[in-house]
Amino acid sequence: MGPLVGIIMGSQSDLETMSPAATALEEFGVSYEMSVVSAHRTPDAMFEYARSARDRGLKVIIAGAGGAAHLPGMVASLTTLPVIGVPVQTRALSGVDSLYSILQMPAGIPVATVAIGNGRNAGLLAIRILGATDTRLADALTAFEARLRDHVAEMNVAVKKDWSPT
Amino acid sequence: MGPLVGIIMGSQSDLETMSPAATALEEFGVSYEMSVVSAHRTPDAMFEYARSARDRGLKVIIAGAGGAAHLPGMVASLTTLPVIGVPVQTRALSGVDSLYSILQMPAGIPVATVAIGNGRNAGLLAIRILGATDTRLADALTAFEARLRDHVAEMNVAVKKDWSPT
Amino acid sequence: MGPLVGIIMGSQSDLETMSPAATALEEFGVSYEMSVVSAHRTPDAMFEYARSARDRGLKVIIAGAGGAAHLPGMVASLTTLPVIGVPVQTRALSGVDSLYSILQMPAGIPVATVAIGNGRNAGLLAIRILGATDTRLADALTAFEARLRDHVAEMNVAVKKDWSPT
Amino acid sequence: MGPLVGIIMGSQSDLETMSPAATALEEFGVSYEMSVVSAHRTPDAMFEYARSARDRGLKVIIAGAGGAAHLPGMVASLTTLPVIGVPVQTRALSGVDSLYSILQMPAGIPVATVAIGNGRNAGLLAIRILGATDTRLADALTAFEARLRDHVAEMNVAVKKDWSPT
Amino acid sequence: MGPLVGIIMGSQSDLETMSPAATALEEFGVSYEMSVVSAHRTPDAMFEYARSARDRGLKVIIAGAGGAAHLPGMVASLTTLPVIGVPVQTRALSGVDSLYSILQMPAGIPVATVAIGNGRNAGLLAIRILGATDTRLADALTAFEARLRDHVAEMNVAVKKDWSPT
Amino acid sequence: MGPLVGIIMGSQSDLETMSPAATALEEFGVSYEMSVVSAHRTPDAMFEYARSARDRGLKVIIAGAGGAAHLPGMVASLTTLPVIGVPVQTRALSGVDSLYSILQMPAGIPVATVAIGNGRNAGLLAIRILGATDTRLADALTAFEARLRDHVAEMNVAVKKDWSPT
Amino acid sequence: MGPLVGIIMGSQSDLETMSPAATALEEFGVSYEMSVVSAHRTPDAMFEYARSARDRGLKVIIAGAGGAAHLPGMVASLTTLPVIGVPVQTRALSGVDSLYSILQMPAGIPVATVAIGNGRNAGLLAIRILGATDTRLADALTAFEARLRDHVAEMNVAVKKDWSPT
Amino acid sequence: MGPLVGIIMGSQSDLETMSPAATALEEFGVSYEMSVVSAHRTPDAMFEYARSARDRGLKVIIAGAGGAAHLPGMVASLTTLPVIGVPVQTRALSGVDSLYSILQMPAGIPVATVAIGNGRNAGLLAIRILGATDTRLADALTAFEARLRDHVAEMNVAVKKDWSPT
Repeated sequence: MGPLVGIIMGSQSDLETMSPAATALEEFGVSYEMSVVSAHRTPDAMFEYARSARDRGLKVIIAGAGGAAHLPGMVASLTTLPVIGVPVQTRALSGVDSLYSILQMPAGIPVATVAIGNGRNAGLLAIRILGATDTRLADALTAFEARLRDHVAEMNVAVKKDWSPT
Repeated sequence: MGPLVGIIMGSQSDLETMSPAATALEEFGVSYEMSVVSAHRTPDAMFEYARSARDRGLKVIIAGAGGAAHLPGMVASLTTLPVIGVPVQTRALSGVDSLYSILQMPAGIPVATVAIGNGRNAGLLAIRILGATDTRLADALTAFEARLRDHVAEMNVAVKKDWSPT
Repeated sequence: MGPLVGIIMGSQSDLETMSPAATALEEFGVSYEMSVVSAHRTPDAMFEYARSARDRGLKVIIAGAGGAAHLPGMVASLTTLPVIGVPVQTRALSGVDSLYSILQMPAGIPVATVAIGNGRNAGLLAIRILGATDTRLADALTAFEARLRDHVAEMNVAVKKDWSPT
Repeated sequence: MGPLVGIIMGSQSDLETMSPAATALEEFGVSYEMSVVSAHRTPDAMFEYARSARDRGLKVIIAGAGGAAHLPGMVASLTTLPVIGVPVQTRALSGVDSLYSILQMPAGIPVATVAIGNGRNAGLLAIRILGATDTRLADALTAFEARLRDHVAEMNVAVKKDWSPT
Repeated sequence: MGPLVGIIMGSQSDLETMSPAATALEEFGVSYEMSVVSAHRTPDAMFEYARSARDRGLKVIIAGAGGAAHLPGMVASLTTLPVIGVPVQTRALSGVDSLYSILQMPAGIPVATVAIGNGRNAGLLAIRILGATDTRLADALTAFEARLRDHVAEMNVAVKKDWSPT
Repeated sequence: MGPLVGIIMGSQSDLETMSPAATALEEFGVSYEMSVVSAHRTPDAMFEYARSARDRGLKVIIAGAGGAAHLPGMVASLTTLPVIGVPVQTRALSGVDSLYSILQMPAGIPVATVAIGNGRNAGLLAIRILGATDTRLADALTAFEARLRDHVAEMNVAVKKDWSPT
Repeated sequence: MGPLVGIIMGSQSDLETMSPAATALEEFGVSYEMSVVSAHRTPDAMFEYARSARDRGLKVIIAGAGGAAHLPGMVASLTTLPVIGVPVQTRALSGVDSLYSILQMPAGIPVATVAIGNGRNAGLLAIRILGATDTRLADALTAFEARLRDHVAEMNVAVKKDWSPT
Repeated sequence: MGPLVGIIMGSQSDLETMSPAATALEEFGVSYEMSVVSAHRTPDAMFEYARSARDRGLKVIIAGAGGAAHLPGMVASLTTLPVIGVPVQTRALSGVDSLYSILQMPAGIPVATVAIGNGRNAGLLAIRILGATDTRLADALTAFEARLRDHVAEMNVAVKKDWSPT
C-alpha cells in the first residue's frame, strides 16, 4: 500500500522547513512520500501529482512554498484531498508574502495554513486529520500531549530551582 | 448519532462570519452543531467542550474568533481532533490580529487556519477532512468543483459578450 | 488576425478593476480579448489559455486577481509571453495579499506588476511593450503624454485662479 | 507569607526576556515566584495556577509569551488580579504576532501590555501597581527615577565632552 | 476625599473612546475625575497634572491619545503611579501609530497599554489594580465575570435555537 | 516682491489635503503661491519650477503627493531650498505608500516630512522655518500656541462639566 | 547598432541586485548597457538618459533603486519605452519602501515592477518583452524553461533518495 | 555667540545615528551643540532645554529618538523653533515605532521628520533651513550638490568599465 501523506515543496532549499513534517510523521508511524514539485517551474508535474493523488492512496497533502507561494493553493484546486500549506520564511518579507499567498484562498478552495516556517505542525495536523477516524493515532496523540506536558513540568522545576528568591 | 462537526465562536456577533460554515456543511449533508463558547468569558465551558468533543463523536472542530483570538488554539490544546480556525475581521486591524493569534501556534499544537473572514472555506475544509476517508463526500466534492467550473464558464460567456471589441 | 492582448481575470467581479485596461487598449486602437479564467476553479481552462496564447497570436497577457492571486504567476509559468499582473484590492487586506501573491515570483518566472487596482496602467504598459517595436504606437504614446501634460496645465490654471492670495 | 508577584512564561527559552522582570522586583525588594506554565501544553496547570493565584497571596501576575501568545489573556480570564503581558520577540514576525495576541483582548478582560521584549518594564509596572497603595515602594520609585535622571546627566556630560566643536 | 482614578485625554474628540472607561468605573462605584490635558498643546498643565497626581490622592491614571500619542508616556515619566494607555483609533493608520507611540516605552518607564480603542478595558484594568488590595472590588470583579459568563450562555442558547440542523 | 512659500501638488484632487497649508500661511500673513505641478506628467514644468524657485524669491517649498509620491523628493533634488513633503492619504494603502516615497530619501537630499494628510502642519512648519530668523513670526507663533492652549482649557471645562461623578 | 536594453541604478552599491539582470541578458545573447544614474543626485543626467533612450535604439529600460526609489517612475515619465523597476532591499524597511515608491504609480505612467531584490527576473522580463515579437528569443525562453524543469526534476530525485521512509 | 543648531538625543547609544548630523554641520561650518536629553528620564531638563532654546540663539533643533519617541514632538511643543526629528532604528520594529511616534503629530505642532536612521539628512535639512536666508550656505549647498553629482559620475565610469558586454 502506498503512503498516506504526500509532502511536496517547490525547491530542495525548502527542506530545512519541510523535513520536520516528515520527522513528525515518522514519530507517529505514518507513511509518507517526499517530492520536489514546483508550481512555476514544473506545472505539468504539479497537475499530474495533484490529479492522481487520491487514486494513489494519499489521504493528506502537505505543501510548502515561499514568496508568491502558489503550490498549496494550486494543488488544492486540483484535488479534493485536504491540503496543508506551510509558508516558508523569506528574506525580504519574512514569509508574510508566503503566508498571504497560501492563506487568502477564495471561497470554494480552502488550504489549511499553519504558522510561518512551522513544518512540524503541518505534520502534526496531518496526523490529527488521519486521527479523526483512526483510534490508534488518536491514542498516540494523547500520549504525545502528555510528553509535551511533562517537558513543560521539567522546565518549570529547572526554572524554579534557578530563580528562588530569598 | 451526534453531529460530526462542531462550530464554535466567541460571540453571537461572529455569526455573520461563521454561519457560511454551517451552510456549506448542510450543502454536503454533513451533520453539525453550533455553539457560542468564549475562551475569555467562559473558560470552563470551553474546557468542557473541547475535552469531551471526541467522545461525543465530533470529528472536526471549527472555531472562529476575532482580536486576541484564543479560542481555536486553546481548543486545539484540549483535544486531539483537527481544529480549523477562522480569523474574524476586526475594526482597527482588519483581522490581522485575529490571524496572528490563530495561526502562529507553537510547534506541537497546530491549528488549520483559513482566510480572514472566510467561514465558508472552514466548512469546505472540514468536508475535505471527512472526505479523505469517505467516498461519498469525495464524490460530492468532485461534483462541487464541477459546479464552480461551470459558474466561471458562465461568467466567461457573459464577459465575452459585453466586451467584444470591433 | 486575432487580438494582440489577452485580458483575463478570475471572476466577473474583477471587471471594475480590469475594464479600464480594455478601455486604454481601445483608446490606442490595440485589439484585445477579455475572458474569465480562474486559476483555482478552472485550472484546465487556464492551462489551455496560457499554453495556446502565443500560437493564437497574443503578444501580451494582462491578468488581474485578488487575495491568494495565483492567476498571473501561473499563466507566466505556462507561456513565454510577457505577463502583466494587476493586484485587485481586497476587503480585509486592501490588496496587499494580492500584491505579494503576484509580485514575489521566484527567479526564473517574472510577472510585470502594476499598482494595486490600477487596471488602466496595465493596459498602458501593454501598449508600451507593443510600442517598443511599433512606431505608430510609440507616436501615439507621445501624443498621449502631451494630453496628460495639458490636463495638468489646465488644473494649474484653475488652482491658481482660486488661490491667488492678496 | 507567599510572594506578591507571579512571573510565568510558556517556555524556558523565554527566560532571556522574562528574567529582567525578576531582577527589577529584586531591586525593589518585592517577593516573587517564577514558573513555566504553558497555555497550550499545560492548560490544566495554567487553570490551576490562575484560579488559585489570589488565594495564594499574589497581587500581580506577569506573563510572557511569543507567537500565538495566549498565556496572558487566558490567565486574565481565570483570575481577577491585574495581569501584565510581555510580548516575546519572534523570528518571523518580530513579536508583532505576540503583541496582537496579548494586546487585542475583548472588552471585559484587560491585559496590561508592555513593549515587545521589555520584561524589565513588566517588573517596574508591577512595582508601580503595588506602589499605588504602598508608601515605601512609592518612595523607592521616586529614588529610582532620580537614578535614571542622574544616568542621563552623566551621558550628557560625556557626549558634550566628545562633541564640543570649535 | 478626592477621586481614585484620573482619566485624561488630549482632546474632547477622544471622549467616544474614553467615556466607557468612566462608565466602567461607575459600574464598580470607583470615584474618578475626567480632564482634557494635551501633551502637545498644554505641556505645562500636563506637568502639573502628573506631578501632583499622587498627592491629590489618585491611585491610577488612564490616558488616551491618538497619532503621535505622547500623553500616556509623558505622564508616566512625571509620576510614579501606574499609568494605563489607550491607543485611540486614527484615520490613516487605524491606531497603529497611537499604539506604537504608547506601547514602545524604554526600559524604566512602563505604560500599561490596552487594545486599540478599548477604553472600557482601561477602566476595568484600573479596577483590577485597585482590587489587588481591595476585597470589595475583588468580589465585585468576580460577580462581573459571572455576568459575562451568563451573557455568553444566553447567546449560546439563542444560537443553538436558530441553528439546529435536522 | 514675490511670495515666500510655494505650495505645489500633483493634481487638483490633492487640494483637500493641501489647501489647509495655504490657510495656515494666510493666518500668519505669509505670502504664498499655489500650483499644480506633476513629477510624472509635467516633468519639465517641475524642473523649471524647482530650478527657478530660489531666484524667484521663494524661501520654502511645500509639496504634496500620493502613491509613488516623487514630487517632494525630486523638487528637493533640484533646489537647495528646504522642501516640506505632505504624504496624501491613498485608497489602498492609506498613504503609507506616499509616506515611504517621500520620507525615505537617500543621504544627501532631505525632505522635511509631516504626518499623513496633514497639510496644515506643513504650513505651520514653513512658518517655523521662516520664524527662525523673523521675530514677528516668532511672536505670532507664540500667540498661536497660546490659542491652542486656551482651546484645550475650554474643552477641559466642558468635559469636566459633563462628567462630574457624584 | 547600440544595445537593446539599458540597465540603470542610482548607486554602485546596487550592483549586487542589478548585475543578475545583465547576466540574464548575456545568457540570451541580448545586448545591453549598464549605467549609474541617480534621480536625486544627477537629475539632469537622468533626464538626458531617459529622453534620448528610444532614439539611441533602446527597447527596454531596467531601473533599480532603494528607499524613496524615484528612478524607475521618473524615467517612465520621460520616455515611452517600457520601464522595469527593481525594488532594492533596504536596511530598515526591507525594501517595502522601495516597492511602494516604484509600484504605486498614478494612472498614466506604468512601471513594470518585479519582486524585491530580484534583478534576474527584471532581465528575464526584458527578454519576454523582446521575445513577444522575436521568434529566436521566444524559442530560447522555451528552452530556458525546459532547463528550469530539468533542474526541479533533479532536485526531486535527490530528495526522494534521501527521504525514502521504510 | 552661541551655536545655531542644537542636536539632542535620549541616550548616548543614539550617537551612532546622530553624530552624522553633527558631521554634516561641521562640513558646512555651522556651529552646533550636542546634548543628551531624555523626554522620559529627564522631563525637567527637556522643558528647560526647549523653553530656553530660542533665547540662547538656537535657530533649529535636531532631535533623535527610538521606540515611543517623544523627544522631537515634546520639544516642538515647548518651542516655536523648527524641530527636525530623526527616527532611530529599533530592534523589534525596525524604527517604524520611532517613525510613527515622531511623524504623526496633531495639527498645530509639526515635526520635520527625516528617513529612519538618517541623521546626516537631519543635518543637511538644518543647513537648508538656515540657507533659506543665508546666501553663503545656499552657495555651499550648490557646491555640495555638485560633489554628489561628480561622485555619481565617477561610479558611472567605474560600472561602465566593468560591464561593457562584447
